[in-house]
Amino acid sequence: MPSNNNSSLSQQTQSNLVQVNGTWTRQTEQSQPAEGKLSDAKIYENKSEHGVSWTVVSPIVFTYRVIQCRNILDPRNDTLLWGHIGDEDLKGTISNSKPVKRFVVIDDTVNQLYGPQVTHYFAAREVVYKILPLPTTEENKCMELVTKILEEVHKFSIDRRSEPIIAIGGGVCLDVVGLAASLYRRRTPYIRVPTTFLSYIDASVGAKTGVNFAGGKNKLGSYVPPVATFLDRSFFQTLPLRQISNGMAEMLKMALMKHRGLFELLEAEGRMLLQSKLQSCESSNNSEQEDSATASTRIAIETMLEELAPNLWEDDLDRLVDFGHLISPELEMRVLPALLHGEAVNIDMSLMVYVAHQRGLLTAEEKDRIIQCMLGLELPVWHQDCSLDLVQKSLRERLKHSAGSLRMPLPTGLGQAEIFHDMIEDNILGQAYQKWTDELASSGNK
Amino acid sequence: MPSNNNSSLSQQTQSNLVQVNGTWTRQTEQSQPAEGKLSDAKIYENKSEHGVSWTVVSPIVFTYRVIQCRNILDPRNDTLLWGHIGDEDLKGTISNSKPVKRFVVIDDTVNQLYGPQVTHYFAAREVVYKILPLPTTEENKCMELVTKILEEVHKFSIDRRSEPIIAIGGGVCLDVVGLAASLYRRRTPYIRVPTTFLSYIDASVGAKTGVNFAGGKNKLGSYVPPVATFLDRSFFQTLPLRQISNGMAEMLKMALMKHRGLFELLEAEGRMLLQSKLQSCESSNNSEQEDSATASTRIAIETMLEELAPNLWEDDLDRLVDFGHLISPELEMRVLPALLHGEAVNIDMSLMVYVAHQRGLLTAEEKDRIIQCMLGLELPVWHQDCSLDLVQKSLRERLKHSAGSLRMPLPTGLGQAEIFHDMIEDNILGQAYQKWTDELASSGNK
Repeated sequence: MPSNNNSSLSQQTQSNLVQVNGTWTRQTEQSQPAEGKLSDAKIYENKSEHGVSWTVVSPIVFTYRVIQCRNILDPRNDTLLWGHIGDEDLKGTISNSKPVKRFVVIDDTVNQLYGPQVTHYFAAREVVYKILPLPTTEENKCMELVTKILEEVHKFSIDRRSEPIIAIGGGVCLDVVGLAASLYRRRTPYIRVPTTFLSYIDASVGAKTGVNFAGGKNKLGSYVPPVATFLDRSFFQTLPLRQISNGMAEMLKMALMKHRGLFELLEAEGRMLLQSKLQSCESSNNSEQEDSATASTRIAIETMLEELAPNLWEDDLDRLVDFGHLISPELEMRVLPALLHGEAVNIDMSLMVYVAHQRGLLTAEEKDRIIQCMLGLELPVWHQDCSLDLVQKSLRERLKHSAGSLRMPLPTGLGQAEIFHDMIEDNILGQAYQKWTDELASSGNK
Repeated sequence: MPSNNNSSLSQQTQSNLVQVNGTWTRQTEQSQPAEGKLSDAKIYENKSEHGVSWTVVSPIVFTYRVIQCRNILDPRNDTLLWGHIGDEDLKGTISNSKPVKRFVVIDDTVNQLYGPQVTHYFAAREVVYKILPLPTTEENKCMELVTKILEEVHKFSIDRRSEPIIAIGGGVCLDVVGLAASLYRRRTPYIRVPTTFLSYIDASVGAKTGVNFAGGKNKLGSYVPPVATFLDRSFFQTLPLRQISNGMAEMLKMALMKHRGLFELLEAEGRMLLQSKLQSCESSNNSEQEDSATASTRIAIETMLEELAPNLWEDDLDRLVDFGHLISPELEMRVLPALLHGEAVNIDMSLMVYVAHQRGLLTAEEKDRIIQCMLGLELPVWHQDCSLDLVQKSLRERLKHSAGSLRMPLPTGLGQAEIFHDMIEDNILGQAYQKWTDELASSGNK
């Protein structure tokens, strides 16, 4: 919560904080400067006839690493054990001091496919480990799963600073483990290893953790980033194509909001990227030239980090990355499990492209190019349960929970966007909805 | 988690982040400077033959107010509704825009004593309110209580930015509501109104929230400060004297660690402060001279804020405020509910004073003055269940969970302290424990 109290602080005494011999003391402009460690925190004191009040301003710095790597389950690869630590010396100290311990939560399906490799990795590295496979599906994404993890972590016992919990799975797995880790001893470091394309692009790079509650999506959670995220595209080889499309929706979101080059890449090569499951050709492994799988994932991560890093705790509610996420949560919870997250997002984005067109923000040609690109990525562009009623209800909810402003990101061209604050006029929304249904009801529904 | 990665960042590209027309873009030293809002966050990019990695450094600033006030339940007093907002103009905007809503969690006992006044306050101010009384005892301090609050908050429906949840009660109530608020929609503002002297001094001014889990004290929680804490000593009038002594232990802790003046005040007037339940005499209400109840609570809050503000998320494990909290959690959980928190803390401090004396850090006279002061505050200075075994087990646990160092604060005089890192030698601990038992077993046990 950044201070908006400047005007009322003007008559206060401002103190810096200096640490001498392990004790922190306040230091005002008037006091003798002491030699010691200076904190970025400040305390403002205000004395009046009613008594004393203090305003504490205390910055916390989150640092986390996002690493693209290969063969993360190869025992010769250090990343899974030590990739979260930057300093090579520190790594040496920690790894030599005592047996290395790791607690690993893995999605059930991922465990069926990669469990033996994971076990082999830790055994070969002589790590004391516990692997907990869990059914991390959207339907199970609730506090009970968090509690289950916490009980097992507590039983296993880890050092709360140096032994990160590792999550291997899709977005639900990463979100649930993130919440458990952020609660345990008020914060235990954790690592995200996304195995789905959607979580690779989306859940892996931010600070959000969460579970569903009382019928609401991600109603409970925290903003505590992992110490590190390890991105390995080779997991995608075992994904069904529909899961690749699912992730493509979030990639397309970043393209539409911020990066025309990425949009054009998806327009030209999206179908190929889908079919190849974003695997690089062997021949291009060591070439200087980035292949399109590498380039598109890199740009998607970079554009996402650009938007998340300055707003890690979402103090600013105006968020371009909310595109596709105004109507989709309602739709997704209603039709679960018929639609995957990215599919619901894409249906939302598709309608919003029609709204942008109706408002004169996109030309008909731009609108058609975007819809064609979506179809090329085999994403649904329309859904029968996405009624005008549901749309209006979702937007009203948004208005209610966004401090009185709609804060709706809309494309204003290919790869650029703006955030609009006023409610959409009923006739614009109605016309856009009608045209959307007329043009896409037959083509897009899966 | 502040960056300790400087050495490995040296070959990376550093980007600042600039927002233009709602879109964030990276800006390196080489790029053309764009006009726009500059973020404090940074992204470091590192390209190597293995791929790309990014290090995100993102500061979050917490701002919170601690206000000493009187008559907080008087409907003419604005504080409970608007004291968390600094800017007078903003207050006007929010209060005029729509009916004001507040969700209030109140401890059962406090509700019996002050419930009618609380209800009258909100009714008189025409607030749409929901008051939830709960049995917030140490035995009930668990996730189920958090879930109960979350269900009711969800049913009531509040604006996640402008309608803070209000907690009125002791430390358990403040901790549990704080955790619920920090989880709901990943962070909902909340307000702490401590009604016990212990929580006034201790739980009210920091960022910690928490519940017990798997037999461990505060094993789950978060570091999310309230938007505001309102301190009104008039609640203490209805507390039994034992509860006043309970808070005195945490006040004495701050005195012993940091403030000789506060120690001398407690030594001279502690018994009087206890008997008067820290109420100011009516005659001194408007005088220039601070009375000792006002002075002692002010110094206790200020010294606490000095230690907490620079270390809100406890990134630094060396904490003076941990004095009295190395052995007491184990003791407290074992004898629950026989000892109150402050009583367990005082028994821990009493033994540590003997350890400090045995090490030559305190003279016999200083040790005796401290113990006499404790007895004057009617605090237990010894307990039969605080066996040498329990002490040793607690210190071993501490060593295990504090990154390999004991980090034990010990007084090195009256009102000054240092943190010691090595395990206490067995003979020193044994001798101190023996002398402690010989001298105090008969006098201090309640």
